[in-house]
This record gives sequence, C-alpha cells and structure tokens, in this order.
Amino acid sequence: MPALDRQGDVFVLDLGDGENRFHPDWLAAVDAALDEVEKADGPRALVTAATGKFYSNGLDLDWLFAHADQHQDYVVSVHALFARLLSLPVVTVAALQGHTFAAGAMFSLAHDFRVMRADRGFWCLPEADINIPFTPGMSALIQSRLTPRTAHEAMVTARRYGGHDALAAGIVDHTADEDAVRTTAVGIAQAQAAKAGDTLATIKARMYAPVLAALRDTANPLG
Amino acid sequence: MPALDRQGDVFVLDLGDGENRFHPDWLAAVDAALDEVEKADGPRALVTAATGKFYSNGLDLDWLFAHADQHQDYVVSVHALFARLLSLPVVTVAALQGHTFAAGAMFSLAHDFRVMRADRGFWCLPEADINIPFTPGMSALIQSRLTPRTAHEAMVTARRYGGHDALAAGIVDHTADEDAVRTTAVGIAQAQAAKAGDTLATIKARMYAPVLAALRDTANPLG
Amino acid sequence: MPALDRQGDVFVLDLGDGENRFHPDWLAAVDAALDEVEKADGPRALVTAATGKFYSNGLDLDWLFAHADQHQDYVVSVHALFARLLSLPVVTVAALQGHTFAAGAMFSLAHDFRVMRADRGFWCLPEADINIPFTPGMSALIQSRLTPRTAHEAMVTARRYGGHDALAAGIVDHTADEDAVRTTAVGIAQAQAAKAGDTLATIKARMYAPVLAALRDTANPLG
Repeated sequence: MPALDRQGDVFVLDLGDGENRFHPDWLAAVDAALDEVEKADGPRALVTAATGKFYSNGLDLDWLFAHADQHQDYVVSVHALFARLLSLPVVTVAALQGHTFAAGAMFSLAHDFRVMRADRGFWCLPEADINIPFTPGMSALIQSRLTPRTAHEAMVTARRYGGHDALAAGIVDHTADEDAVRTTAVGIAQAQAAKAGDTLATIKARMYAPVLAALRDTANPLG
Repeated sequence: MPALDRQGDVFVLDLGDGENRFHPDWLAAVDAALDEVEKADGPRALVTAATGKFYSNGLDLDWLFAHADQHQDYVVSVHALFARLLSLPVVTVAALQGHTFAAGAMFSLAHDFRVMRADRGFWCLPEADINIPFTPGMSALIQSRLTPRTAHEAMVTARRYGGHDALAAGIVDHTADEDAVRTTAVGIAQAQAAKAGDTLATIKARMYAPVLAALRDTANPLG
Repeated sequence: MPALDRQGDVFVLDLGDGENRFHPDWLAAVDAALDEVEKADGPRALVTAATGKFYSNGLDLDWLFAHADQHQDYVVSVHALFARLLSLPVVTVAALQGHTFAAGAMFSLAHDFRVMRADRGFWCLPEADINIPFTPGMSALIQSRLTPRTAHEAMVTARRYGGHDALAAGIVDHTADEDAVRTTAVGIAQAQAAKAGDTLATIKARMYAPVLAALRDTANPLG
C-alpha cells in the first residue's frame, strides 16, 4: 500500500511494490497522503515513486469487473485523483522506475514533471488495444500535457515508449539510471519546494481549468 | 478520379494523377471509397496516395468561381470530408508523393499519420498569400494537429515546407525516397490494421470533439 | 518613451531605454504607435525593440501600488494591448536584445515571431516567485503560443531562459548576436510585409478567438 515519507522539504509517496493498481483502498491511501502534503506548512514538494518492476498499471480491472455496478463511481474517484494531483499547491514529480501504463501513465501526466528510468520499463497508453476508450476527462488530461503529435500517436497506436523515446516525445522531462531515478526526482522537487502555496494553486487551476472541469464532471464521467 | 484498391489489410485510395482538386465529383468518389472502407469487416487501415507531381492542391477554385452561389454548401461538404476522415474508425496514413497545398494540406492533417517525399514537393498553406482566410473549422483542424509554433508559422507566413523541413516542424511523421513513400505508408497502416473498430472511433471522436463540432457547424461554416 | 520609426516597409517601435515597464503613459504611446501602423497603407510590418539591458520588465508595479484602486482598469488596458498586438493585421516581430520578464515576456508572445540575443539576457515568467498569479487572459495567451511542456515549466517554475534555452524550448524563433538582433528581426518583418491586410487579420482573429475573448473579458479580468 502507498506510504508517505519525508526527506527535507520533499514528501516521497511510495505507491507500492506490486502493480500498484487503483484499488479503492489504494485510492483512499493516496488521497490521505495528499491531505498530509497539502495541510503541511512551509516549503514542500512531492515525489511519487514505487518499488520493483511497476510504477503503476492503472485501473484495478479485477476489482472493477467484480463491482461493475460501481463503474461510474469508481471512474469519478479516479478522475478526482487526477484533478487533485493536477492542481496540487506544491510542485510534484513522478519517479518512473518501472512500467507506467494506462491510468498509471495518466496519473504520471498529472504531475508537474516526470523522470523515467533510461534503460528498462515502458510508458504506454494501451487503451486502443484493450478496448477501453479514454473518458472525456482522461482525453482532456492527456492532450493538455503533450504535443498534438505525441498525444495522437500515444492514444491511437498504444505505442510503448522506452525512456529515451519518451524523452524525445516530450512525455518525460528527464531520464536517469535505475539508481538515480528517485534521487533525480527528489532533487527537482527540492529545488521547487519554495513554490508551494496559494499562487501556485491559482496558476495551475487557471492553466488547466477546462481539464479540471472535464475531470470533475460527475454527472457524465464516462462520456 | 479517386480509385480504391486493397493490399492485404490496407485499402489504398489513389486520389488521382492531376492536381486532385476537390471537384464535387471527386468529393463524392472519395466519400464512396470511405464508405467501402468503413463498411468492411475485420482488421483494416487506409492509405491515401496520388500519382504524379501533386498529392492535392485542395479546393477546386475554377468550379467554385463558376458556382459562387453554392459556396456555402461546397465548404460544408469539404468540412464534412475533413471531419469524416479525422474520425474514421481505422488508422489512416497519407502518402505525400507530391505537392500538398491548401485544403489538400488540411486533408493530409485529417489523417492519423503522414509520410512525405524527402527530396521534392512542398507542403504549404498558401491562404495568407491568396486572400482566402481559413474558415473557423479549417483553423481548428490545423491547430489541433500541429504545435502552436508550427501552426502559427504555416498559417501566417504561407511557408512552403520541403520534406525535411516538414519533418523537423512535426507536420509529417516520416520522409522517404520517391519510390518508398507509398510502401512506407502501407507498412505503417498494415501495422495498425488491428486497431480498426469502435474503440478507435470513440478515442478519435473524444480527442477532436471541438474540431469536429467546428467542422460540422453547417449553419455558419464560413465564420 | 516608445518611439516609432520606419525603415522601408518595416515600422520599428523602440520601447525605450529603461526597464520599459507598462506605465499608463507608455501604454498610451504604444497604442498610438499601433494606430499609426494599422492606419498606414500598403505592405508593412512591425518590429518592436528596445535599447539597453531590458526589452521590458512588464507591469509598472510602482505605479500599480500607488494606484491600487485602478488595478482592474489597469489590467484591462494591459490585456487590451496584448489582444491588439496578437490580432494586428501586419506581421510583428519582437527583437529581444535584453531582459524580457513577466508581462514583458507575455507582450513578446503576442508577436508573430521573436528574435533573442544569444549570449546575454533572460526571458522569464517570474509570477510563481513573486506571488502574482497569471490572470485567465494571460494564461490563455501564454498557453496558446507554447507547447504544453514549455508553458508548464515556464509558468510553474519561473525558469530564466537564456537565448539558446529559449530557442530549444520554442519560446523564440531565432537567436542572434547583440549587433544582429534588430537587423534579423527587421529582415524577417520585411520578408512578410506583403502579408499586411484583412486576410491576415481574419486568420489571426480566428486562430486566437478564445484567447482574444479571455483578454477582452472586461467584466472579470482578474479571474
């Protein structure tokens, strides 16, 4: 389960050591961690990271198939997490040490910056292959953070981007060796810790107003 | 006139061997070809190509000047073609073996991908030079597929991009030698043929919802 | 104070030799210069430039603090200048010979193109550091001209971009040595002088319709 630690001004949220899919309990734990980061005072920033082969594989499809009647509420809660992270009043950096797929990849795009392991692991939006179309909110999130060309290729072809390809496509901001992924992310976060606060919150809220509105559309989240 | 052929899972639509301007008969023939592609079953993709010096020079201005009273209906039909191609439920690749100008260039942007001949031919939006402003729908289409910087330069300066420049600007995805333009496009299309279907249709429809709405605004297509 | 000169088809507007902040008198002088450019006939283009260490440092915060009751009207007038420049019916080029900060950087983005001195001076949006969030109109302007990644980094981190970094990030279109900044900008403007006119005005107005609407929202300019 997700666990929050603090190193200097940087909170480090470890998303887990499995596939780190979005089980409702996982979502609640991440939400509680964001509460703690948001309520803290003074300079601070957030790094999300994970342990093992996966950063996150996204939606918990096993849980979802077993609770099909809760599909809409579940998507609302995932959208709410994306919206909260996208507008968090501190700088956020995702340390992608392993596979980052589907809603896990979207979660990474809701951060301010991304550092990806250079030599192993893929960033991928497989939705076109697995017959789960992006919700309007997910589509808005992805398209707001990537160039038109990269968003189109990633969403239409389900291409698996290794670290170097993800950097070239502008999906991630840095690559690093396995050992340096988390420390690089913490370094970026520490350098931006003084930005935490209301001004940053307003800047992000205005930049992504249409995306946040789409993600918070609880009446029709599935489109 | 446009002619449709099939190679494996890839439909190849040859747009013609002249300037391949959008005469109403040409538009009807392309529309009929898209009907055939859309109604087919199973894995499939579409390549559009042409023969000779031109891929397409866009609007049939001779016909339009002779039928000025049909200006609005004509633009509605061109917009409808762009919208249909942009949201087609199969992957589409434009093989640009020759000049690709004005509405021909916009037509190319409505494809998923573009392959351009490296050493000859230009991709160009000459509207600023020939005093035909982009309609709101055309503007929305172009701006949805290019970076802000490339869209601005292409639309404001009417720059003629050769293959290498078009690749550097992100207008096309690949360049190829004359002999390899069509085969490269077919290869890309073949690799994506399994994507054909409803999920892809939904993904594209949501990605480009505002563009499709602008292109389908039949009340005021000219702005 | 701003002074307008003409070299061939190119009007050159020197913004001043100080920090060139947006005092109300400065805004009025720039507006009068744009009147002259807009009312002139025939081929013409505009270069804005400055003398000394600064291109522009943006809002006149000293004046604003002394006239806090006029805050909203002042922002309306700055937004109006951005909107006017963004939709001017001639091609515009900013010659950035010195520091270009905050609203001065936004002013530069309202031009068609930017040339920046290669070896000295910074382009920077320091708002996240000085606790002045971007207005919705300013945010719309910046995001309409930069890739999502560059806009995010520039707006969230207040990064100072030197000439080479600004070119790599797509903020400016060219870099030049100190002596060549203005002449390079004049050369680009001269080459596009024939574009001046109604078609260009319509193209720009349609490309940036949502941005212009946000900048012209006089009811709630501060968000």
